[in-house]
Amino acid sequence: MVGLITLSKENVVDYVKSRLNFFNLNGDIKVSAIGEGSVEEDGDGFINFVYRVSDGEHHLIVKQSTLEARSKGSFTLDLNRYKLEYDAMKICAAIVPDLIPKLYDCDEENRVFITEDVSYLRISRFQLLKGVTYPKLADQIARYMAATQFYTSEYYLDTKRFRDLSIHFMNTTMRKIMEVGMFLTSVTPEDTVGRPLDPEFVTFSKRICADPAVLLARQKLRHLFMSKGECLIHCDLHTSNIFASQTEAKVIDMEYAFFGPFAYDMGYFTANFIAQYAAAAFRPFETEEARKKFKAYCLFMIRETYVKYCEYFTQYCKEDSKVEYHNIPGLAEDFCLTTLREFIGFAASAMLGRICDLIPYPDYDDIDDYVQRHNAKCFSIILNREMLVKWESYNSIDEFIQDILTIEEIYCRNIKDLKL
Amino acid sequence: MVGLITLSKENVVDYVKSRLNFFNLNGDIKVSAIGEGSVEEDGDGFINFVYRVSDGEHHLIVKQSTLEARSKGSFTLDLNRYKLEYDAMKICAAIVPDLIPKLYDCDEENRVFITEDVSYLRISRFQLLKGVTYPKLADQIARYMAATQFYTSEYYLDTKRFRDLSIHFMNTTMRKIMEVGMFLTSVTPEDTVGRPLDPEFVTFSKRICADPAVLLARQKLRHLFMSKGECLIHCDLHTSNIFASQTEAKVIDMEYAFFGPFAYDMGYFTANFIAQYAAAAFRPFETEEARKKFKAYCLFMIRETYVKYCEYFTQYCKEDSKVEYHNIPGLAEDFCLTTLREFIGFAASAMLGRICDLIPYPDYDDIDDYVQRHNAKCFSIILNREMLVKWESYNSIDEFIQDILTIEEIYCRNIKDLKL
Repeated sequence: MVGLITLSKENVVDYVKSRLNFFNLNGDIKVSAIGEGSVEEDGDGFINFVYRVSDGEHHLIVKQSTLEARSKGSFTLDLNRYKLEYDAMKICAAIVPDLIPKLYDCDEENRVFITEDVSYLRISRFQLLKGVTYPKLADQIARYMAATQFYTSEYYLDTKRFRDLSIHFMNTTMRKIMEVGMFLTSVTPEDTVGRPLDPEFVTFSKRICADPAVLLARQKLRHLFMSKGECLIHCDLHTSNIFASQTEAKVIDMEYAFFGPFAYDMGYFTANFIAQYAAAAFRPFETEEARKKFKAYCLFMIRETYVKYCEYFTQYCKEDSKVEYHNIPGLAEDFCLTTLREFIGFAASAMLGRICDLIPYPDYDDIDDYVQRHNAKCFSIILNREMLVKWESYNSIDEFIQDILTIEEIYCRNIKDLKL
Repeated sequence: MVGLITLSKENVVDYVKSRLNFFNLNGDIKVSAIGEGSVEEDGDGFINFVYRVSDGEHHLIVKQSTLEARSKGSFTLDLNRYKLEYDAMKICAAIVPDLIPKLYDCDEENRVFITEDVSYLRISRFQLLKGVTYPKLADQIARYMAATQFYTSEYYLDTKRFRDLSIHFMNTTMRKIMEVGMFLTSVTPEDTVGRPLDPEFVTFSKRICADPAVLLARQKLRHLFMSKGECLIHCDLHTSNIFASQTEAKVIDMEYAFFGPFAYDMGYFTANFIAQYAAAAFRPFETEEARKKFKAYCLFMIRETYVKYCEYFTQYCKEDSKVEYHNIPGLAEDFCLTTLREFIGFAASAMLGRICDLIPYPDYDDIDDYVQRHNAKCFSIILNREMLVKWESYNSIDEFIQDILTIEEIYCRNIKDLKL
């Protein structure tokens, strides 16, 4: 029941030809499987079998659902995830077409879909790690989130359509991976998947994860993640799933999409910039000026994404919300405040989950120096703890930015004193 | 497509005989249709066609889903509500069998189900209106809510089962009636359904409903009601749907059941006792001592339902929650605090919705004296406003009880001064 054809590098071109009448078999045909290239080219996805196919003119991604994940220590996955992912992309493409790859085909018989290959852009995470900055990215991703979320929420849709969609995107299997990974961290150095964790770090991070205030906050946030179905969320919106240039951005990999809390995507996305900031505080830069500039960019991204998201959401509400939401004084402000608190909480819990887990986390893993990598991760974890203790009491984004700066200052002063 | 048989008083006995092999056609057969008797016997339901059938030994309720509501100004209903209601009752009967009528039959072809007729007990609302008190009711309903909610929540069920159930009970059509009725009140005296509202009251209540703080609070609560799917809730758990005696209680009418917020049922249930309290402050009693006693009972019900609910829920959590919820310090306390705030908010919004709506509200309608009825309703509305402004800041149930007493005292002093 895995379809009639199992795609491979050998048969994928014929397959594409049979599905797309515009594909040119006489063109400059190139085929590769994702995972063959460098992580930097292909991202850190470890779930799917994906092929790049090009005739020189059309550049395609061909993605087939399989029962098992690509990574070692694999687990059984939902075979219908290709369909949910394609459906989610279709909805997003209808709302923000400029921010999604073009969609070409969905083949239910073989559980395959074909989209545009957007690798003429670069995976933003690996460029950020090289110090590249994207001036438009905050605005683009804020608009992506605000638009796809608002127009799939009950603020816009009639409740029947809203409920039908939330049933369609229940996505029980895939979201469960996040319910565990981002909220319940056990810190087990014995696992054999991915990188090993060093014992010193394990002791430190275990203590933070077991802090009663941290445990409680993560369970509360997890409960929101599990029970609040406000809109279609991407659920895996990190910088490896965003291809970007100085002018463009494309969001990919929607196989985790489900009806969840508004704030989750922003939390997960900005978590990357908090991690980039923490890494930038310790990794080598050519000049201290370059470090300072890049760190300022990370803070700009965190702040701007939130500010722009609120602006877009408020604008869509004003223009397109259902009549019952017209003229409710304070509704938009309350939405923004709730979003602020929840996104900070989600960001902290997800970061902690990723840092203390064994799958690769390039934002930190790329720091070669052991001590500096350790510092970047420990600073992050201490910051995450603060965010988790305070998430429900934040009143402005600047308060949060100030916390990042304060905790960095205290952390750096402490390690400096230690060295003396 | 309304089934093969349309039930009537004439054919319902033959129908029952064809479905239940224990029904005795030679017994002392009695048939009546709900709505023929007094409101006090049959309740204030205005949706379904329901028959009482008895052979002298077995006392049955036969309920068939029809396209239209029983009331005038009717609207089209979901034909499958009989099935959802029966399924909800089955689940609750498995969890708290002593608090649910016995279930006998569910006929998918004709959209009919048959349960025990529990009218050997009395509808609690109408007895309360006569000053009858039920010493065990708070404990019984607290246990009903805590048990049916905990054991259908993700604290207990594995997430797949939890999500499958939440899809099964999406109940888009029926819950929508509550989404409008309990949260969006327009106060339109021109409507032709039910009782007329007097113009003075309309002016007063319109002003409260249009208060920006009230509008915002109700929209926020409505958003929780619409997007938080925590467990199977009854959704229509008022005192007309609870048959009781001094020792027993049975919960009926689950056709609105869906996966909603934990706190909603408690809010809706205790709203009845706040209303009873407000009415008791103004309706006639044989002695002032009797009034005092009944009012104290209402406050006891409000307090005790919350306290017992928290106790039961905490106990079930401790005994039966999934392993990821073990040893999370503060989780139960946080659950209780969230429940407190949300239930007070839901109670206020639902009361306001009912008071300003045109369908009957016996707790107030039964007061014959125009001025006293007006006072009971205005005191309630002022109290509801306070609850809506403060719902997110309550920290204990006693704080809320104190607010009831304070606002009553202020209201009564004002009308007294007015009379001088």
